[in-house]
Amino acid sequence: MNIPTPAFLVDRNIVEQNCVRMRAKAQASGIAFRPHVKTHKTIEIGRMQHGGGMGPITVSTMAEAEFFANAGFVDITYAMPIAPEKLPRAAALAARIERLNILIDSVTALHAVEEFCAAHDDALDVFLKVDCGYHRAGVDPDDPDSARLAIAISKSPAVHFQGLLTHAGHSYNAHDADEIRRIAAEETSSLTRFRALIENEGLAGVVRSIGSTPTTSVVETFTDTDEVRPGNYVFFDAFQSTLGACTFKDVAVSVLATVVGSYPERGEAIIDAGALALSKDTSPDHLDPNFGYGLVCDVSLNPLDARLVALSQEHGKLRMPAPPPVGTHLRIVPNHSCLTAAMYDRYHVLDGDAIVDEWRPVRGW
Amino acid sequence: MNIPTPAFLVDRNIVEQNCVRMRAKAQASGIAFRPHVKTHKTIEIGRMQHGGGMGPITVSTMAEAEFFANAGFVDITYAMPIAPEKLPRAAALAARIERLNILIDSVTALHAVEEFCAAHDDALDVFLKVDCGYHRAGVDPDDPDSARLAIAISKSPAVHFQGLLTHAGHSYNAHDADEIRRIAAEETSSLTRFRALIENEGLAGVVRSIGSTPTTSVVETFTDTDEVRPGNYVFFDAFQSTLGACTFKDVAVSVLATVVGSYPERGEAIIDAGALALSKDTSPDHLDPNFGYGLVCDVSLNPLDARLVALSQEHGKLRMPAPPPVGTHLRIVPNHSCLTAAMYDRYHVLDGDAIVDEWRPVRGW
Repeated sequence: MNIPTPAFLVDRNIVEQNCVRMRAKAQASGIAFRPHVKTHKTIEIGRMQHGGGMGPITVSTMAEAEFFANAGFVDITYAMPIAPEKLPRAAALAARIERLNILIDSVTALHAVEEFCAAHDDALDVFLKVDCGYHRAGVDPDDPDSARLAIAISKSPAVHFQGLLTHAGHSYNAHDADEIRRIAAEETSSLTRFRALIENEGLAGVVRSIGSTPTTSVVETFTDTDEVRPGNYVFFDAFQSTLGACTFKDVAVSVLATVVGSYPERGEAIIDAGALALSKDTSPDHLDPNFGYGLVCDVSLNPLDARLVALSQEHGKLRMPAPPPVGTHLRIVPNHSCLTAAMYDRYHVLDGDAIVDEWRPVRGW
Repeated sequence: MNIPTPAFLVDRNIVEQNCVRMRAKAQASGIAFRPHVKTHKTIEIGRMQHGGGMGPITVSTMAEAEFFANAGFVDITYAMPIAPEKLPRAAALAARIERLNILIDSVTALHAVEEFCAAHDDALDVFLKVDCGYHRAGVDPDDPDSARLAIAISKSPAVHFQGLLTHAGHSYNAHDADEIRRIAAEETSSLTRFRALIENEGLAGVVRSIGSTPTTSVVETFTDTDEVRPGNYVFFDAFQSTLGACTFKDVAVSVLATVVGSYPERGEAIIDAGALALSKDTSPDHLDPNFGYGLVCDVSLNPLDARLVALSQEHGKLRMPAPPPVGTHLRIVPNHSCLTAAMYDRYHVLDGDAIVDEWRPVRGW
């Protein structure tokens, strides 16, 4: 491939297939589909996730929300607890699209929203973030205080209560597909259990929104939920395939790199893809402590007997029995495609071996 | 500070002081000063490194080389073993500035340069990369084959041999300033020893170029070398201050973040700075396995009793006895400022507490 390295390669046909499969599963399950766009951050793949349309999406930054809104997406969930200082920006966007859902998980945040809305004679669409066991953000679904917060949100004049949202990020710590299935069951059951608590307080029919790529990938059908929000599944990565959330042939992305140093005497080579071309994510390391910084393949994506053992800013160090000579192209399947994709201004889009397009992701916050 | 978070803050006065100190040391030592610009990637700081001028610099990508050349820098070392496919681009740049030094460390690379130069009736300025113990790139200084390669380079009609270049990246694995000093001594002595080998073959007066921020920071004066190329010293970071290469007050950069979730019952908080705002570098972990993903400070840069224990794409998880409420601003001193700075399109420049400017780094390759 005659492009400067390092380069981020996206196999369009695999992305398409991943998009079709997840969307079909949501449709067959009869639930709402609001895929996350944070992994790819491109309009092109946002549309592929909806079979060409511009359906509901989930974003991780206000910059993504504005970028997709500017392209015509009108129904967006900003799935990160909102910083109070971002409320003016969120309200400005909400005013020009059909729906911007924001996320809160505390009385403090509810009061900030109420104060803002009172001052601006506005009301915002809000999901309550629930902790299904990941213990990052979210309220405890078994704590009566959490139910009281849900009721307070539902009664607040500043808020249109849109439902409960959770993310089973702890599925990334699983060891196999069976363990992911157990976490998937917790993810859905925690919201259903919490909804029952709220129903006891007189609030019925609350929407439940779930989603992580591992949990949404391993189940055959979506039950006991109303909406799913996976994101990484468009690309997958070395981690997801090691974990069992996909097969290796489902992984749509790789970094093209060039061998710039070859040291057979110490069984090592240096490539021109370092921490800024790959990110320093080592996520499969709980499954294989020596996994390294990505899966080393030849240009045809055949895995090699090699480990990417160290990254500095622009250098990657490979350990392998027979390092290839200077000038050889390799492909590194990234550990965590979300973080690797974000390092690039443009993606080189493949159809088979041919580069057929360039896609440009949004960046920043 | 009334700016959207996460934001990358650069204290201009500290950068200035770091720049002045390193440049003065090089001048007092009577050696050439060719600072690296890969840490900051901005024209503004490139000039500060030379007291306002546009002196010799070192770069890690061809994109940096072209960006600084376009701004008027005319003497550049591209300090990464060159991929043969990048030779046309390097030659095109070399033709429009006074000097572009490229780097090789193998007979294969020399042949690639010779083949290119023969086909284009050109000659390129070349440094030979030497391994002073880091074992990333470079030839073994004690191997007679390495001396033969140096002689072959010096005799090649395709090449103007510019000297020997090494980088003591293993100083980052040191445990204290004394260990860094020992590595600094190896860094210089390896080139001096190798130069003696070459002199035995009849090639005298070869330039020796060294440089890593730890090794150039801990020595009082530069001896036994001809040129230094530090880079990270403009910013420093939590790692350099933990290692003893600088003091905490020498660190010029931090990431401004907002608390978006606060969970006193489990002693945790979530900030809106995750892997894309900080990078997942954990470099001080050989000194403190629980160091985490950056040093957590209040807005006045007082370190807090808190650890940044996990990063996902846009979330950072803090563990601390009394997590502050939602909406609180914190500052995270990054572990590795080179990688963190590269995540931002713009730096917010501080003079004291006031934001006085925005600087825009070059990006990509």
